Amino acid sequence: MEKAAIIHYPADHFVYPISKETLHIRLQTKKDDVSEVILMHGDQYLWADGKWQYEETVMEKSGTDGIHDYWHAYIDPPYRRSRYGFQLMSGEEELILTEKGFYKEAPADSGYYFNFPYLHSEEVFKVPSWVKDTVWYQIFPERFANGNPGNDPEGVLPWGSEQPSKDNVFGGDFEGVIEHLDYLQDLGITGIYFTPVFKAFSNHKYDTIDYLEIDPQFGSKDTLKRLVEECHKRDIRVMLDAVFNHSGYYFPPFQDVLEKGEKSQYKDWFHPHSFPLKGGEYPNYETFAFVEQMPKLNTKNPEVKKYLLKVARYWIEEFDIDGWRLDVANEVDHQFWREFRQTVKGIKPDLYILGEIWHNSMPWLRGDQFDAVMNYPFTTNLLNLIAKKSITGTEFANNMAAEIHSYPANVYEAAFNLVGSHDTPRILTECEDDKDRVKLIYTLLFTFMGSPCLYYGDEIGLSGEMDPGCRKCMEWDEEKQDRDLHAHIQKLIKLRKEETLLANDGHFEFIQTDSKIVAYRKYDDHKTIFVLANPADESTEFTLPYPLKGVKITNLLTDKEFAAEAENLKVQLDGYGFEILSLSTSFNK
Amino acid sequence: MEKAAIIHYPADHFVYPISKETLHIRLQTKKDDVSEVILMHGDQYLWADGKWQYEETVMEKSGTDGIHDYWHAYIDPPYRRSRYGFQLMSGEEELILTEKGFYKEAPADSGYYFNFPYLHSEEVFKVPSWVKDTVWYQIFPERFANGNPGNDPEGVLPWGSEQPSKDNVFGGDFEGVIEHLDYLQDLGITGIYFTPVFKAFSNHKYDTIDYLEIDPQFGSKDTLKRLVEECHKRDIRVMLDAVFNHSGYYFPPFQDVLEKGEKSQYKDWFHPHSFPLKGGEYPNYETFAFVEQMPKLNTKNPEVKKYLLKVARYWIEEFDIDGWRLDVANEVDHQFWREFRQTVKGIKPDLYILGEIWHNSMPWLRGDQFDAVMNYPFTTNLLNLIAKKSITGTEFANNMAAEIHSYPANVYEAAFNLVGSHDTPRILTECEDDKDRVKLIYTLLFTFMGSPCLYYGDEIGLSGEMDPGCRKCMEWDEEKQDRDLHAHIQKLIKLRKEETLLANDGHFEFIQTDSKIVAYRKYDDHKTIFVLANPADESTEFTLPYPLKGVKITNLLTDKEFAAEAENLKVQLDGYGFEILSLSTSFNK
Repeated sequence: MEKAAIIHYPADHFVYPISKETLHIRLQTKKDDVSEVILMHGDQYLWADGKWQYEETVMEKSGTDGIHDYWHAYIDPPYRRSRYGFQLMSGEEELILTEKGFYKEAPADSGYYFNFPYLHSEEVFKVPSWVKDTVWYQIFPERFANGNPGNDPEGVLPWGSEQPSKDNVFGGDFEGVIEHLDYLQDLGITGIYFTPVFKAFSNHKYDTIDYLEIDPQFGSKDTLKRLVEECHKRDIRVMLDAVFNHSGYYFPPFQDVLEKGEKSQYKDWFHPHSFPLKGGEYPNYETFAFVEQMPKLNTKNPEVKKYLLKVARYWIEEFDIDGWRLDVANEVDHQFWREFRQTVKGIKPDLYILGEIWHNSMPWLRGDQFDAVMNYPFTTNLLNLIAKKSITGTEFANNMAAEIHSYPANVYEAAFNLVGSHDTPRILTECEDDKDRVKLIYTLLFTFMGSPCLYYGDEIGLSGEMDPGCRKCMEWDEEKQDRDLHAHIQKLIKLRKEETLLANDGHFEFIQTDSKIVAYRKYDDHKTIFVLANPADESTEFTLPYPLKGVKITNLLTDKEFAAEAENLKVQLDGYGFEILSLSTSFNK
Repeated sequence: MEKAAIIHYPADHFVYPISKETLHIRLQTKKDDVSEVILMHGDQYLWADGKWQYEETVMEKSGTDGIHDYWHAYIDPPYRRSRYGFQLMSGEEELILTEKGFYKEAPADSGYYFNFPYLHSEEVFKVPSWVKDTVWYQIFPERFANGNPGNDPEGVLPWGSEQPSKDNVFGGDFEGVIEHLDYLQDLGITGIYFTPVFKAFSNHKYDTIDYLEIDPQFGSKDTLKRLVEECHKRDIRVMLDAVFNHSGYYFPPFQDVLEKGEKSQYKDWFHPHSFPLKGGEYPNYETFAFVEQMPKLNTKNPEVKKYLLKVARYWIEEFDIDGWRLDVANEVDHQFWREFRQTVKGIKPDLYILGEIWHNSMPWLRGDQFDAVMNYPFTTNLLNLIAKKSITGTEFANNMAAEIHSYPANVYEAAFNLVGSHDTPRILTECEDDKDRVKLIYTLLFTFMGSPCLYYGDEIGLSGEMDPGCRKCMEWDEEKQDRDLHAHIQKLIKLRKEETLLANDGHFEFIQTDSKIVAYRKYDDHKTIFVLANPADESTEFTLPYPLKGVKITNLLTDKEFAAEAENLKVQLDGYGFEILSLSTSFNK
């Protein structure tokens, strides 16, 4: 056995409670190197005849990333405590892995084994229960709809009359969103994520001037209140964007430091390196990236903390919002987010906390900070597969298996999945205007693990390059909308609501295929849904490796029912084709 | 290359800040599989010509555990942010490891790389600066010295007149400790860890009755105040033991639940499964282990939390203690410890927080909970090597290298190292009364990484089996003390104070040897100290693999100076022999 590749750490994605009774334990080995793994587990205080007493549970393979195999097991420690080790088999070879290393014979002393010392039900990672069923819609308010020309900003342009630029404005506002809530409800949306709406300088509003005021071009506080109420009437949740990593240039405390330098009472609100403050290519104060307009806030300063936590409370208490999306969340200190969580969950326990983090986010997802992060690694893999065609189906499955296994399962179930945002090119543009590929991408987005999010207008075929290109005005003329794409997405959302297996109610597993197609199943003890996707432009055939003869199968996209005639089912997939098949049977052992 | 064994996670012991400028980054590979590793690192926002701009730093090998090699590098990201990847070489083969997997060519997009998003100086793991120089002495107060017969408990026995049993009492008290502070100061002690002193039922006092009262058999609050003052006069710190996982049976809230059952206002202070409460082999309420006398406290209950945090504050505010040792710390919830840390560090920022955890403790040592844990894995390895003779020198070095690399370096430097406690057999007994082996063990304890602790009486040769045997009365008759052992330990403590390299001021590295001896070096840019230990009873010879010809070498135990005549120095070691050699040169590259 390749000992150097047998990996388990007693923390994070390797061992965690998934309910108040159950622990989930995982192990990583070299691919195809180990034939069987048995989990040895028991209460550390239960001994007999000078030996620790343990039970054995067979571990199952939960996937492979092409380099490693992943093994897992669920156990219910009767006294909430569990010491555990692994017995690994490979041909004739047998090894015991404990925390103190490898042994040929199982050590008698429980002190040698890994320890999950106590399962506290309060430490089970839990996102608000409404999140896994939610279908999100991201709105960039300046560009969704102009419902009230009375609050248009200076220099407003006729709706959609120009391509979006860094500076131009088209007058989108809250009233416009209220007017189109029926549209969103009809599409099936149950959550809206608004990019920033507080008073700011730019058209994107990520450079806040006043965190306690609505930007006048979007309406008033009363309009926001009405907007939230109208959303809630339609069972749509509302999430706002908190830009707490940095303020805007015109944030009064920053202006004070610019003006008074070292004498400003606000100098410790930021990270100045010297005075007077100077912008330019490399400002002499810390910023988001190197953007002089976005001075980094000192979130370790108790005054700043108090102010920002007041902001966090205010929009919940006064406007009843349902979620906070946290901009550049990874560059703010962990202790700030811990206090943020305590504060907001203290007011509204089922508020959703979503961090903007593009890379591995385990340190923020240990239960003391965020509920989820924006799942850009999923975006990258999906686009590499279908839009850029730079990876194969097998590579996609391998990469996603590595991602999935780098988080606890109950964390990944709540991942915020997206295929584009105000920070990326539009999905249609990424797919070279090839709608078939866009449809395939959405089929995977809406059937994968996690909570999916649509970027406004993607559903009717808006195009656009990297920002500002991806921030076009929404097209409201149905003649100019891609209604066929809209219908496909509407259908997928409907399916996701009807088939709770699709909305994270069961388990997820990739099916091994040749590299040509991507296949996975979602299943529980009674039912299986297969999702099959052909990421190539030529048609292909795939044989489902399950005994299906005579089993009733429903094609969920066409509602047609049929039964397989042979033992195995061959499925024909057109170029960029896909199938979603439902079976009233489970293939679980 | 064995890809499956190339491991890095962007968290915990793999990447962390060690100062406000510097990150420490580590990588794990299969032993002897990779010949060179280059760290690619740069600010994620610095691009030129469509490519991320990165620097290269050669990684050095910091050790091996016999299965893996460990690589590390220090970098100073100029803007406190660092994306990074690894370029690995093995013969002709070359691979790039990023967060998104392995590549042959370095990806141009910084988004593919691992990320340490921002170095917050407040997030540097920092234990109080006094800890690394501290030499601890653990006192079990009932057995150290009886200074005031006036407070002797009922049934007190003449000092040392019997073997210790589960129930007998000998009248040790605070006054006795005060009387012997000069003895401790003379030995070189700079910190005392007291096992519990609060009002309790048993002789060990781990079953608290009143967390806000001193057990009358130890004295009064005034005596404790005087004791702390006398310690502080002698630059000795005082650490008390907080038993917050469980209370004692006679803790009034528990008595109330026993009496009133479901109607008790204190029922949520514990974890009852049903009423009335019943003890026995498997109590119907949660306990420490299965001990009915130790009902587990519900530390998630805000009332309990408030009470225990009041206790934590009280003994700091009123008695100026310097540390809290936390009993069964791993079975209490993390959130309680986070609030505990905020509370006690809020009052006394340089208070030391030491958790009793016997297994991997990374989840408690991320900076938000403890400063250190009791390093029992070190105890086990050291005893297996020298007392039980069940592992070789190489196995010891391998096991310790695995331990050391499972924590950030700045965490491990503050590990609380011990070779015995009130919970283990005495070290002399473990060594089958062989004093040479005890001396060797202490030589390693006092020269290793971490903060060493002596268990009372070990320094003068007390013996004893597993508790209660290991809780004998201290021997104060010098005639009956092992003064030779005492002198050896006193010398080691003195050396540790004179040679700051020994007290964690430099780096630590095992020297590869045949299996016969254990050798390591502690070094900085100017100086090296070699520690050589022969764990066998036959004498042996060891050649130091460094160019030493003509270099002045000081034997720190004998103060003799000499220079090596040949290129390499051959050192002769008796059975259980040791050498501590100091050189005014560094072998660093």
